[in-house]
Amino acid sequence: MTTDASELASIPQARIIDEYESPVSGYQILMRVRVDNVPGILGSVATTIGESGGDIGPIDIHEARRDHIVRDFRVYCRDAEHARDVVERVDALPGVDVLRASDRTFQLHRGGKIAMANKVNIRTNAELSHVYTPGVARVSMKVHEQPDAVWSLTSRANTVAVISDGTAVLGLGDIGPEAAMPVMEGKCMLLKSFGNIDAWPICLATKDPKRIIETVEAVAPGFGGILLEDISAPRCFEIEEALQERLDIPVFHDDQHGTAVVVLAAVINSLKIVEKAPEDLKVVILGVGAAGVACARMLLNYGVKNIIGFDRTGAVYPGRDNLNFAKVWFAENTNPERFSGSLQDAMRDTDLFLGLSGPRMLTVEDVDAMAPDSIVLALSNPEPEIMPELIQGKARIIATGRSDYPNQVNNVLAFPGLFRGALDATAVQITEEMKVVAAHAIAEVIPDEQLNEDYILPSVFNDQVLTNVAAAVADEARRTGNVRQAGSRVFV
Amino acid sequence: MTTDASELASIPQARIIDEYESPVSGYQILMRVRVDNVPGILGSVATTIGESGGDIGPIDIHEARRDHIVRDFRVYCRDAEHARDVVERVDALPGVDVLRASDRTFQLHRGGKIAMANKVNIRTNAELSHVYTPGVARVSMKVHEQPDAVWSLTSRANTVAVISDGTAVLGLGDIGPEAAMPVMEGKCMLLKSFGNIDAWPICLATKDPKRIIETVEAVAPGFGGILLEDISAPRCFEIEEALQERLDIPVFHDDQHGTAVVVLAAVINSLKIVEKAPEDLKVVILGVGAAGVACARMLLNYGVKNIIGFDRTGAVYPGRDNLNFAKVWFAENTNPERFSGSLQDAMRDTDLFLGLSGPRMLTVEDVDAMAPDSIVLALSNPEPEIMPELIQGKARIIATGRSDYPNQVNNVLAFPGLFRGALDATAVQITEEMKVVAAHAIAEVIPDEQLNEDYILPSVFNDQVLTNVAAAVADEARRTGNVRQAGSRVFV
Repeated sequence: MTTDASELASIPQARIIDEYESPVSGYQILMRVRVDNVPGILGSVATTIGESGGDIGPIDIHEARRDHIVRDFRVYCRDAEHARDVVERVDALPGVDVLRASDRTFQLHRGGKIAMANKVNIRTNAELSHVYTPGVARVSMKVHEQPDAVWSLTSRANTVAVISDGTAVLGLGDIGPEAAMPVMEGKCMLLKSFGNIDAWPICLATKDPKRIIETVEAVAPGFGGILLEDISAPRCFEIEEALQERLDIPVFHDDQHGTAVVVLAAVINSLKIVEKAPEDLKVVILGVGAAGVACARMLLNYGVKNIIGFDRTGAVYPGRDNLNFAKVWFAENTNPERFSGSLQDAMRDTDLFLGLSGPRMLTVEDVDAMAPDSIVLALSNPEPEIMPELIQGKARIIATGRSDYPNQVNNVLAFPGLFRGALDATAVQITEEMKVVAAHAIAEVIPDEQLNEDYILPSVFNDQVLTNVAAAVADEARRTGNVRQAGSRVFV
Repeated sequence: MTTDASELASIPQARIIDEYESPVSGYQILMRVRVDNVPGILGSVATTIGESGGDIGPIDIHEARRDHIVRDFRVYCRDAEHARDVVERVDALPGVDVLRASDRTFQLHRGGKIAMANKVNIRTNAELSHVYTPGVARVSMKVHEQPDAVWSLTSRANTVAVISDGTAVLGLGDIGPEAAMPVMEGKCMLLKSFGNIDAWPICLATKDPKRIIETVEAVAPGFGGILLEDISAPRCFEIEEALQERLDIPVFHDDQHGTAVVVLAAVINSLKIVEKAPEDLKVVILGVGAAGVACARMLLNYGVKNIIGFDRTGAVYPGRDNLNFAKVWFAENTNPERFSGSLQDAMRDTDLFLGLSGPRMLTVEDVDAMAPDSIVLALSNPEPEIMPELIQGKARIIATGRSDYPNQVNNVLAFPGLFRGALDATAVQITEEMKVVAAHAIAEVIPDEQLNEDYILPSVFNDQVLTNVAAAVADEARRTGNVRQAGSRVFV
């Protein structure tokens, strides 16, 4: 073991290579291998990795025993499939057992991505008596006598519950509450990182809208806001509406409104570039789920008159088959000419295409048929309705949900600032107007002189986004009086 | 304002005095005062504070405007009542408005005591794509395909929900879920500080046991354990039992079992000192609520034969009036001689008194009547059933719930280690045996040669407590197979 350790010590610089800077490969795995402690085994592992086309990076020893050694191999591979092949071949060697193998994404997730932190230390009995009994009793009695003190004397005012039932997780569908946890932890991280909000994930072991509503209502007293996430349509509409009625804190379904706010911001800036007015636009929305309905609503409020929606059945119009209550609303409020033809026909002379559906749903011919200075927002993620390189020069403005193309439509631009502003203003709800000012605030981060076809939305890492959105939302909440009464004075 | 600031700058050392070290007073407040910006007003505030008997510490300027100045006064007072008097007199001055006044406990609570923290930074699109979409999708799919991966790839394995309906908060009674928040945040802090567990408070807007059970069941997928807290008896028994049946994670009502574990630890060490055997003891338990029932159960399991319980109605025996189902169990399993007399009569020749009731419920005469080498655990908090100084020399061993007397019976000795051990072993429940080994582990922190009448329990700040309890609990869970199957290997 001493020999091995000193061998490793001779290549310390290799261990601190940032793997994304590595010239060897962008995809690497960490493979924990248990080998019998007999001569030649390490060589057979190395040979097998090499023969499989993997490049070996630094090797660590995890555990050394008389009969076995556990080593961590860093292996550079072409992609996930290649990595699986390497792992399988090594695992098949006699006297060798791959205990686990993970890439950087899995490594980051090990043990979870979030933690709870104390704001105050507990090192002495005096400190203990302030944060817990007996001191805390006076604080609890204060809240009991003066209920609005919960906003100043507990963490409620800065805390948001991220709630999902796991029925519509990313593009993955109904994968259940446990499998939704990595996404909800990620969402909480975004609220913290981009909005300085303390968020905690609550993934629900029920899909019954009534039980979801009751559960969220029951857990609400400790939270200053509710972020609903990845709940399938049309259940999400009913759940959000019921919770908004029952609770006096902001309730916000991000898949609907977060998307709609950022789409509106993209449209606002796009129209400045193409110099069209919303009332003159012909808009096609492909995908009439949670996001599609919310986007339509915001675009209508923004002045757009002519929207034609398509779902799996086809164009959406009043009286069509297969309309849930949300689509009935959509049908009655869009498609003024009752268009009932194909997507291909609808695309003719369309100014704005908004894709919220799936990969490769749009063709180059569809885009060719659009009006001059057309705008394509192809937001299916990770694979858009049409790849931007296929329609470069055909559409004037192209946006996707991806970070590796210009104009990323990312909800992170909206929800942290929306909640930050709502919490700062002690808003009791997030109104339609608060969403509209949020969209304008996002759009206005880009000065007119910098605005161009490849820069219609700011980067999610632009600090100005949070500042602008939070301030606009808080101002709007205060302006319309959608805020809690100022707390009474807190006396000892 | 410049002048004021420089005046303040001349006494910087005053600002960093630890107030608990202050020679002036143990009780001080911070009073935020808004005064009209006219000459003489500051003087009138200072004079009034002085005339009210308060001593002025450092003064800060919070805000200075043309028409008013907001200052923070630190004022040393005798106690909370005195502080209220000072505040009222200052507030009554013309041109003066006390915006708020708080002591150190309230100051510590401002904005809450807990926060959420990200374990991984999000500074670049690459980092974003690992912790959120698109990278997180693979992690979620892994959990979907291989459900036990939720324990390795999310924060679940180290996360506990602290759940209360606010019906029995400390000694304060049914003060509601919002008022329970400061206590539950404190409990979460203790889990973090003493057990390195990520805990989050969930205070419920319902008192209906059925809805509480359904709510906890619904939120469970994200949590590795459930700590029930301050739920009134006998509802707490039904709620805990139902959740233990329905969930495959540890569910633990601390008011019952945390107390019982520490009481058993105190009894184990006390019996070493007085050299009595559990089966020879006569025990009186005053208070047959959540804690009383759980303590009786643990003492019976430990070998105690003769326990007489008292509630507000009197001695508890089968067939008595006013017995809920928990007390029926208590009656049937204790009081072998069917004693039905008074507490005073029962105390005669009692070896161990366990008080879980209220202040001043026991008299010196009651203790005088006890058997030689008597043990008095007077756990009503903050005021015990009898003050230790009254029975010094009369009882051989005296313990309370207070930190300012020897032998503090504090649940913090038990629940962090119990959950730490249960989580470490991936226990699916906390069994009676795990509680028993926890009690022994606490007791054994004190070596026999150090054990004495004033040192039967270790300090809550003794690191050995967590180590001992967690190891013992984890070993016991593994020994009896009360653990989840080892997770499958996680591959990319």
